Amino acid sequence: MYPEPFKSRMGDRAKRRLGDACGLTRFGVNLVTLGPAGQSALRHWHMLEDEFVYVLSGEVVLVTDAGEQTLSAGMCAGYPAGKRDAHHFVNRSNQPATYPEIGTRVDGDNAFYPDDDLMWVDDGDGQYAAHKDGRRYT
Amino acid sequence: MYPEPFKSRMGDRAKRRLGDACGLTRFGVNLVTLGPAGQSALRHWHMLEDEFVYVLSGEVVLVTDAGEQTLSAGMCAGYPAGKRDAHHFVNRSNQPATYPEIGTRVDGDNAFYPDDDLMWVDDGDGQYAAHKDGRRYT
Repeated sequence: MYPEPFKSRMGDRAKRRLGDACGLTRFGVNLVTLGPAGQSALRHWHMLEDEFVYVLSGEVVLVTDAGEQTLSAGMCAGYPAGKRDAHHFVNRSNQPATYPEIGTRVDGDNAFYPDDDLMWVDDGDGQYAAHKDGRRYT
Repeated sequence: MYPEPFKSRMGDRAKRRLGDACGLTRFGVNLVTLGPAGQSALRHWHMLEDEFVYVLSGEVVLVTDAGEQTLSAGMCAGYPAGKRDAHHFVNRSNQPATYPEIGTRVDGDNAFYPDDDLMWVDDGDGQYAAHKDGRRYT
């Protein structure tokens, strides 16, 4: 999870770990419920992870380098590993939105956050949160 | 795709390649529509691929070594890489069923089909269909 002050910015967000419940290890699957004003994540991209989302209900705003786009039930988005286009979902409606999010599980992944003083770094024993200059968040 | 006589047994099955459309390479995502009497696949398991399905609409029967279980909208199933429990979906209803299927993309995967004279083998240049004794289907 993010260090503060980032963690609190996620707002009303709940995840059910469906992939873990099934014993999967190569990718994760979370069923996400994003309440009004909730965010999926800070806007970010992954070096080694593909990510994919499929909206089941409600409406979310996808924010990427290209701008904003509203996604509703039956719409999907994918973010290829290594593509330097940071993305996240924001729920600007007054209803919850639900979607499964799928992400590769792979050692050595780093993630980058162009809008915030944060990066997520794998040091061989797992991932840690760091400032952009490399100092660890404590 | 399977060689005959297996291919025809799939019946009414259509797939939209959502992951490819998004440029993903680490896992595949297909939106599957399975018509009445359609099958997702021959019953099989993968050595190196996790697989996951989430039912969006309709009803499918999941068949594994443990028997049969009916899944309807909002239910999911996952099949961990290397777990020797062959699985597939059959639509025994009179309505179509839809679900995304997600599977790891990884070189060197083999797949095994306990009910049929088939295995799917990676020879370093891709996968081919073989009889259980190793002879290639031609």
